[in-house]
Amino acid sequence: MGTVEVLRDGAVLVDGGRIKAVGSYAELRDAHAGAVVEEVRGVLFPGLVDCHTHAVFGSPRLDDHERRALGEDYKTIAARGGGILQSVREVRARSEGELLALTRARVQTLLAHGSTTIEVKSGYGLDPATELKQLRVIRAAAETARAALVPTFLGAHEVSPEFRDRRVDYVRLLCDEMIPTVARERLAVACDVFCEPGVFDVAESRAILAAAQRYGLAPKLHADELEGSGGAELAAALGALSADHLAAISDAGIHALAGSNTVAVLLPATMVFLGRRRQAPARRLVEAGAAVALATDFNPGSSPTVSLPLVMVLGVSQLGLSHAEVVSAVTVNAAAALGLAGDRGQIAPGFRADLMSCGVADWREVAYWMGENLVTAVWTGGSACPLPTAPVSLGLHVET
Amino acid sequence: MGTVEVLRDGAVLVDGGRIKAVGSYAELRDAHAGAVVEEVRGVLFPGLVDCHTHAVFGSPRLDDHERRALGEDYKTIAARGGGILQSVREVRARSEGELLALTRARVQTLLAHGSTTIEVKSGYGLDPATELKQLRVIRAAAETARAALVPTFLGAHEVSPEFRDRRVDYVRLLCDEMIPTVARERLAVACDVFCEPGVFDVAESRAILAAAQRYGLAPKLHADELEGSGGAELAAALGALSADHLAAISDAGIHALAGSNTVAVLLPATMVFLGRRRQAPARRLVEAGAAVALATDFNPGSSPTVSLPLVMVLGVSQLGLSHAEVVSAVTVNAAAALGLAGDRGQIAPGFRADLMSCGVADWREVAYWMGENLVTAVWTGGSACPLPTAPVSLGLHVET
Repeated sequence: MGTVEVLRDGAVLVDGGRIKAVGSYAELRDAHAGAVVEEVRGVLFPGLVDCHTHAVFGSPRLDDHERRALGEDYKTIAARGGGILQSVREVRARSEGELLALTRARVQTLLAHGSTTIEVKSGYGLDPATELKQLRVIRAAAETARAALVPTFLGAHEVSPEFRDRRVDYVRLLCDEMIPTVARERLAVACDVFCEPGVFDVAESRAILAAAQRYGLAPKLHADELEGSGGAELAAALGALSADHLAAISDAGIHALAGSNTVAVLLPATMVFLGRRRQAPARRLVEAGAAVALATDFNPGSSPTVSLPLVMVLGVSQLGLSHAEVVSAVTVNAAAALGLAGDRGQIAPGFRADLMSCGVADWREVAYWMGENLVTAVWTGGSACPLPTAPVSLGLHVET
Repeated sequence: MGTVEVLRDGAVLVDGGRIKAVGSYAELRDAHAGAVVEEVRGVLFPGLVDCHTHAVFGSPRLDDHERRALGEDYKTIAARGGGILQSVREVRARSEGELLALTRARVQTLLAHGSTTIEVKSGYGLDPATELKQLRVIRAAAETARAALVPTFLGAHEVSPEFRDRRVDYVRLLCDEMIPTVARERLAVACDVFCEPGVFDVAESRAILAAAQRYGLAPKLHADELEGSGGAELAAALGALSADHLAAISDAGIHALAGSNTVAVLLPATMVFLGRRRQAPARRLVEAGAAVALATDFNPGSSPTVSLPLVMVLGVSQLGLSHAEVVSAVTVNAAAALGLAGDRGQIAPGFRADLMSCGVADWREVAYWMGENLVTAVWTGGSACPLPTAPVSLGLHVET
């Protein structure tokens, strides 16, 4: 994870959407005289993999942002109509077409910041109809997007408001109805649970993810974000693809992840946006031997950012990772967090030809200049993607 | 500071580079039938004022960034050839032409993020010839830039390496030679000092700024950044334009600024990039009655960002300011920090017609979407500025 191989005057030979060879420009040019040449200035990276987003939502939660800044806690904000349930009400009310248009614009902007594979979760429905609507939006967006979208079912993002006083019934609805339907309709490849005190506890999370596994959905967890509750340990025990957040992970959790194939997905932009002073113990995770990935957590409540390069800067500045480690964290390790290790996230023979170029002289600059989009071009499956030439609006604002 | 007036379907009448009237589109259209109309979608803001940058430098300090992340302290980094003195060596070695080309590209990128007035400091010379070279670069960049540049002399950024063991002589050089020359050649309008334990103490800072005032340069201070030393109190006592950083300001310092016209300039991106957990007590400053501004601190060591909108997001998330307060902080209050109150930073009759538009539906979104440039157009002196359509490289990397 701490090593990046840098080639100067290099070239990538692409055929049929895959990388066939990587080497010096002169040698590859000689060996493949008939190949069409596309010249790249700056630095060519693997296309970035954003392995944790909630991109299907309605409006930005501007009031939450300000109220939190002025000192209101999460419960007060929720009691005033903010929090996740605000996004739930809105996603329930909006048509599939509206949500699709919003999601397409956001995916286009994520791509413009270098992300060629993007995980997208449901979780703002919390009822069967709306969760399926969100997942259909992701599928429809994937059909036209140049980025690859990886859909995750997150019906267990919060206890549905209709089930506040009978949470057992909501867990049963998830396990017996929603997960089987999602699996049957092939609307998701993974199932995620928000495992945190006050949301779903470890026993509930285990039950939900066991059901998911029975139906062929790979488990993932939001774990130990604000308070430790053993989420990381559960993720490792289940063989989950990833355990995400982890700002409050315990020593036992670090040990468990280090001894597993579960990827630790850290979301530093979230903690910065929330104004929290604590970040996940990234160095200790790396040094224990865990695979660490970084993601945007793009969502309207706690991380309204589409920029993995910004997250890379924060990975160095806030998490104490090296430049090489953050590059691995948003490419090869992020691919592993989606079960796509070996398929994407590297510039190597056999991998999908997903690439991005940045207008920099030194590869480390991509994780250094903060808040400036330096991506100059993006390719997926070997062909160049048209990028927006003007800013794309990321959200409609709804009058409240 | 906490109130922003929002006009819907508004219009701005511009004449001779100044704003003549602001009102409803329909009314202004009727009253000025001959006026040329430029339509703006989204939200029109005053052009942003970045009141603290160090934009004249050579390479990015990539090694410093990584070493700090991995746990090296400032002294170890400096001993290995990093820190401010690395930039000093490089700025001394580079030609005026090279520095000018770099500075022009950076000013263009600052403008593309909405900054229409930009303060730029010297301070990477620390000898008479190089300090003057930096200030001439700022003057030359200003001649062609569409943004207005405000030059500040910061010969007291650090004790010059040649004067390590005779710092009294460096203070004397600053006061008796450098400040008089800068003033005579009209190369700066203000003089700044890094007042911090280990750099310049309060007595030295007072002496340098007293000399500056004698020569007509307005005083500014880098004050109480990492350790409190009474810099804010000194700024207030001197009637300085601003006291900047302030993460370690004392209660007495807050009280002093609140009772003065000195603007408290806060730099939240710097603390995030440095991985520091502490931020300046912005709310306490506002509530005490101090005028608070925000700036990028754009520099290669501790804040490689050109984005005031990102700083606005951090102003809410990290400093606890409201959306309206951060808008005031990068417009009217930042103008005051440059002695330009009443001239720019507001969309009001008589003000310079410096404007920016953002592709958002709600004005608060500019301080919410993190790490995405939403600026769609910029005007200075009433006329539209050409903006780069592709990323501009911010730094040449020098092989080390």
